[in-house]
Amino acid sequence: MPRTISSPVIPAHKSLTKGAFTGPVSAADVLQASKRIAPYIIRTPLIYSRALSQQTGAEVWLKLENLQNTGSFKIRGAANRILQLSAEERKRGIITVSSGNHGRAVARVAQETGIAATICLSTLVPENKVEAIRSYGANVHVAGNSQDEAQEEAERLIREKGLVWISAFDDLAIITGQGTIGLEIMQDMPDCEIIMAPLSGGGLLAGIALATKSISSYTRIIGVSMEIEPGMVRSLEAGKPVNVDEHPSLADALGGSIGLDNRYTFPYIRDYMDEAVLVSEASLAPALRYTFENEGLVIEGGSATVIAALCDGKIGDIKGKKIAVVLSGRNISTDKVIKALTD
Amino acid sequence: MPRTISSPVIPAHKSLTKGAFTGPVSAADVLQASKRIAPYIIRTPLIYSRALSQQTGAEVWLKLENLQNTGSFKIRGAANRILQLSAEERKRGIITVSSGNHGRAVARVAQETGIAATICLSTLVPENKVEAIRSYGANVHVAGNSQDEAQEEAERLIREKGLVWISAFDDLAIITGQGTIGLEIMQDMPDCEIIMAPLSGGGLLAGIALATKSISSYTRIIGVSMEIEPGMVRSLEAGKPVNVDEHPSLADALGGSIGLDNRYTFPYIRDYMDEAVLVSEASLAPALRYTFENEGLVIEGGSATVIAALCDGKIGDIKGKKIAVVLSGRNISTDKVIKALTD
Repeated sequence: MPRTISSPVIPAHKSLTKGAFTGPVSAADVLQASKRIAPYIIRTPLIYSRALSQQTGAEVWLKLENLQNTGSFKIRGAANRILQLSAEERKRGIITVSSGNHGRAVARVAQETGIAATICLSTLVPENKVEAIRSYGANVHVAGNSQDEAQEEAERLIREKGLVWISAFDDLAIITGQGTIGLEIMQDMPDCEIIMAPLSGGGLLAGIALATKSISSYTRIIGVSMEIEPGMVRSLEAGKPVNVDEHPSLADALGGSIGLDNRYTFPYIRDYMDEAVLVSEASLAPALRYTFENEGLVIEGGSATVIAALCDGKIGDIKGKKIAVVLSGRNISTDKVIKALTD
Repeated sequence: MPRTISSPVIPAHKSLTKGAFTGPVSAADVLQASKRIAPYIIRTPLIYSRALSQQTGAEVWLKLENLQNTGSFKIRGAANRILQLSAEERKRGIITVSSGNHGRAVARVAQETGIAATICLSTLVPENKVEAIRSYGANVHVAGNSQDEAQEEAERLIREKGLVWISAFDDLAIITGQGTIGLEIMQDMPDCEIIMAPLSGGGLLAGIALATKSISSYTRIIGVSMEIEPGMVRSLEAGKPVNVDEHPSLADALGGSIGLDNRYTFPYIRDYMDEAVLVSEASLAPALRYTFENEGLVIEGGSATVIAALCDGKIGDIKGKKIAVVLSGRNISTDKVIKALTD
């Protein structure tokens, strides 16, 4: 199990060792995914951050998935999943439940590939988020007064209409698609020593860990979660998937459980992630402001977690180390940014 | 002379025709500059803008010089100039007058190449701008109560101490350095039909026009200036360099005259720019907000001019055209951004 509290001693690297969960996905699959999704994604730049490098003493580079199509990395996994549907599945249409980045990503790829997509949302989702998904041409289905009820509605539509379920993270094609980020980082910076990314359901982290460790077993993979109810970290501590409550957070993309029936991201993360770091709610707004002022980039709360972990010295002795930091998305309301800038 | 008011009819392209000012700079010089400055700059990405493409009906791509080292494109020209100094000149040290992007760029390249740099500023320059330049290790020399008096002080130091003057725009090495942006756009999008960039002293526009027209004579080059006292546009109308007054503007990087003794940018712009477009002060804050909300990017007022020109339909019939828009910089105070977002 990865350490969940940072310390100045960095433990031995996890690697593709005997006994670790290997699952049915290989590095070759990630390379294939990379070719498959290329027409649908931006091959985002990895740029040097002078400010974070001076602040930490490390050599910090930013992987700008915040500039990605639909405003987050989620389109990589969604594209990799949707592009592998059979002709018969494409005809049936697809469905998912997400008011956020995954919903946008599925809607956009479906639009571009001419597949009918239904995105189920609860009545709690604000109108601007509904509009954002609708702008990608999806059939937005508002039903139920909670995420759980929206999920039940989706399951009903799958049963009744035969729609194909597109999971947000616990799916091998999704994990493999997100893994293309690790591949690109390794292509751009083969001597990268640490990769940091937000940790939620684990699709991003599992994909990056899988791709990176296959290419460079000594590169450390660090996930960053919120210290309040971090679903994956609590599950790792328990040795099996456990449920957590959701709390309101500026990092709203990171909340929630990994699913009690989790099949893939839990064992991948358990066996390939080197360390999990937890950050506080109070550290997010300053991290968002820091990125705004020093990099001129708008990032969402989930991405601010990794900046907060770096700025607050949460990951031990990193002096002189080459670090790639994944800025996962930019989908945040202007009001929230202004609040973070002015509080 | 380029048209200064937009119209739906796009005139014949300017090209490398007989009789045009050719000056002593060639496309080969731009290619050499590109190699020379590579270790000092970020080869910035050119990314597709879904929002601007939908808004205009064109295919709009953004050249992200706002992500450039020091926060603006100015480091390209400064690096190209400074890296060509003789050993004797390097020993003497360099000097310029700039409270803004050029000052930062000169200071940073000087720091990285171990050359002593003096940046002259007037007492009017706010402390945060002084600090930004000082952070790059430059000798900041505050003297005089206006830009003109700071200039006089710089000239005194050149006479007395033999410091080498680094011009902000009217210099062949500077123009050639900025031209590397045109080269990169052509490398990334060889069928680019229009390039738009802010027009002030003309170093950026002249460099881009020179590089681009040499590679692709049919690509149109459009400069965007403020409608109040645009130095280059007034000079083009007069047929010779004329002085203009400076006015306070959100696009503070664009104000001022091109110099009555202008030698290079005036004839280059006159002969190679296809069109100049003027935008109003009132259009800048909405353009800044548009870029913030749709692209998640912080841009300075000077860069907002090109977004304003596009959003306000200032450049005639561009439906279906491939357009590269140069976002020139991100150096703007957080207070000004918040004001633009909330007004």
